[in-house]
Amino acid sequence: MDVEQYMAELGAAARAASRVVAAASTSVRNTALLAARDALDSARAELSAANAADLARGADNGLEAPLMDRLQLTPARIDAMLEGLTQVAALPDPVGSITDMKAMPSGIKVGRMRVPLGVIGIIYESRPNVTVEAASLCLKAGNATILRGGSEALASNMAIARCITRGLEQAGLPAAAVQVVDTRDRAAVGRLITMPEYVDVIVPRGGKGLIERISNDAKVPVIKHLDGTCHVYIDAGADEAMAEAIAVNAKTQRYGTCNTMETLLVHASMAASLLPRLGEAYAAAGVELRGCERTREWIPAAGTAVEADWYEEYLGPILAVRVVDDIDAAINHIDVYSSRHTESIVTADHAHAMRFLREVDSSSVMVNASTRFADGFEYGLGAEIGISTDKLHARGPVGLEGLTSQKYVVLGEGQIRS
Amino acid sequence: MDVEQYMAELGAAARAASRVVAAASTSVRNTALLAARDALDSARAELSAANAADLARGADNGLEAPLMDRLQLTPARIDAMLEGLTQVAALPDPVGSITDMKAMPSGIKVGRMRVPLGVIGIIYESRPNVTVEAASLCLKAGNATILRGGSEALASNMAIARCITRGLEQAGLPAAAVQVVDTRDRAAVGRLITMPEYVDVIVPRGGKGLIERISNDAKVPVIKHLDGTCHVYIDAGADEAMAEAIAVNAKTQRYGTCNTMETLLVHASMAASLLPRLGEAYAAAGVELRGCERTREWIPAAGTAVEADWYEEYLGPILAVRVVDDIDAAINHIDVYSSRHTESIVTADHAHAMRFLREVDSSSVMVNASTRFADGFEYGLGAEIGISTDKLHARGPVGLEGLTSQKYVVLGEGQIRS
Repeated sequence: MDVEQYMAELGAAARAASRVVAAASTSVRNTALLAARDALDSARAELSAANAADLARGADNGLEAPLMDRLQLTPARIDAMLEGLTQVAALPDPVGSITDMKAMPSGIKVGRMRVPLGVIGIIYESRPNVTVEAASLCLKAGNATILRGGSEALASNMAIARCITRGLEQAGLPAAAVQVVDTRDRAAVGRLITMPEYVDVIVPRGGKGLIERISNDAKVPVIKHLDGTCHVYIDAGADEAMAEAIAVNAKTQRYGTCNTMETLLVHASMAASLLPRLGEAYAAAGVELRGCERTREWIPAAGTAVEADWYEEYLGPILAVRVVDDIDAAINHIDVYSSRHTESIVTADHAHAMRFLREVDSSSVMVNASTRFADGFEYGLGAEIGISTDKLHARGPVGLEGLTSQKYVVLGEGQIRS
Repeated sequence: MDVEQYMAELGAAARAASRVVAAASTSVRNTALLAARDALDSARAELSAANAADLARGADNGLEAPLMDRLQLTPARIDAMLEGLTQVAALPDPVGSITDMKAMPSGIKVGRMRVPLGVIGIIYESRPNVTVEAASLCLKAGNATILRGGSEALASNMAIARCITRGLEQAGLPAAAVQVVDTRDRAAVGRLITMPEYVDVIVPRGGKGLIERISNDAKVPVIKHLDGTCHVYIDAGADEAMAEAIAVNAKTQRYGTCNTMETLLVHASMAASLLPRLGEAYAAAGVELRGCERTREWIPAAGTAVEADWYEEYLGPILAVRVVDDIDAAINHIDVYSSRHTESIVTADHAHAMRFLREVDSSSVMVNASTRFADGFEYGLGAEIGISTDKLHARGPVGLEGLTSQKYVVLGEGQIRS
């Protein structure tokens, strides 16, 4: 197979299909989503057989247990895919809305219309359910999609793609509106991210290494999600029970997520009363602490944090803790070490709350809430394709709106410029 | 001079200054703008002397006449710079506004706050007034700026920079909030576009070649403005007087601008009545026509358009003209040949107007108006830093809003995730 040629064909077909999808009504796109759901429901046996083939191949290749787990399409995961399609079909359609229409002195009216981006390339790892999640969000937002999942999930992804194709065809939409790259050749990724003539944006989902590689090599804009080194700062005078609840929840509710707190900052005046009880709470939860010198005065069991700890995204039961002298020191620490994903202040001081909101330059900035809320569902987006740590275009959880752009529309009555 | 080292120093200083500017109040930023205006006004002799040095150097180097003209800082151009600063100071401040604040089922409130992008790198050619225009818009939007103008304008730009510095200092803002790169070494550009640790976005202003080179080499996002191959489509049944007025204005009001029409599409049913009178109007204005075969039936004086003409951005008194059979053919032509800048339909048919608005994928889409309106001032943005032909982030004329991003803000009362 000539991968260059194959990818160019997928790209050209996607570009043509994107025009049809963009012009399709909301109900046509929803019909496709619901018909794909029904097709998946009818194809459970086919999906399981394809998935079994992937699993057998994975076992032969000595795939590690966590990868084997993510690869698996259990009946419960198929149910969740179907439910996801139902939910995405029920979301409000972002496409076509016109906002900010204003009359100008020249007599023209100027507004902005929300429109699809065009063709979206999705690059992800071994979870086959991402195929449905990503394709359905892109389709709902009026885009065509080219999906390149992990090669170990290829049979499962192709089986899912056949069901989505049935859904598209039932709605009268072109099959090329959702295409899964049908090759394990790694050159396919390199081509996908360097065809700006066919692909408008790349959304990679996976580890930091994958995303950095893609961002470096891409000739197409990338909506990227790098690491989440999230902070909670407990301010002087904060409610102690609230501070403890948020500090424990932000760390322990789930360890492996990007919105999990990785460094806790505590105002010096709160250290004596708060750190010992937090030390106990984290010990009970099995969290290893790495503290600054002042932290270790109050939590002698804590290890010593070294410079590298302040940068670390542990993604596990480890937490760095630092005592700071004031809110300026907290904001400075965040400015130096944060990955600018999500930070929260626990405070009773309104002026400090407002300063933190204004001055902390992260995609989500919170007052008196757990960092774990930084999530498309919790923010009311309905679903998310990822969380962007970029500043341009979409920042923070990316829902349907992040998969669209806004163009200017001008309504005149024959105006010319003088 | 070690250019790598020098640029890194500018970058680090800009990054530090950007935090101060972002936290500064509206009135502090406005004070800096107005104080810079007064400093420029008091420094007219200094500006003229620096500009004379640039002009003398340009003459020695055999700079072409149009470049020499753009380089010149006449008293009228200095007046316009001062007026621009007054206007930017008067614009509403985009920074800090919180929108879409909504209560979520968990009890948290989620909204979006508009915040500066951080550090903006501006790369431009020989016009020194761009230094003031770009710096003032970036500063108003709360950003620090590094400006790299054409080397032939270096003395003028440094003289302007000294005045801006005086304005910043008078407002208590760091001088590094606006820095002009003080070297003619071309390596400075290469470094500026590859320091994501210091620069958040690059805005190039200049010819297509410059912008393509920068986009290819940049490791920082680029808000780019490539070419404007703009179209007007005259639909069946359009008002003929309106169609003629728009078709003439869109081509002839100015030739060298990106929103000037380069190809006119005429519905076949309008050809007999409209093309002869348009042929006369364009002949009177000195516009050379290059038509399809059907065009040349009605305008025998027109030359023959070849395939390359449909792609051409003439930026001069030349126009391609094509007769099409229906609105689908018009939209298809635009889809294939347009640079997706600005397109306009002249029509009396409401459904056609709505289809054109929806289906034409360009940064500005118009009904019954001249393409020449695609402009930040005409759209009520107050000013523009450029016109973006990208789909992500800012699309179309980019004003203050395009120089900001939106982060999520979350207000809680101690909520944790369960």
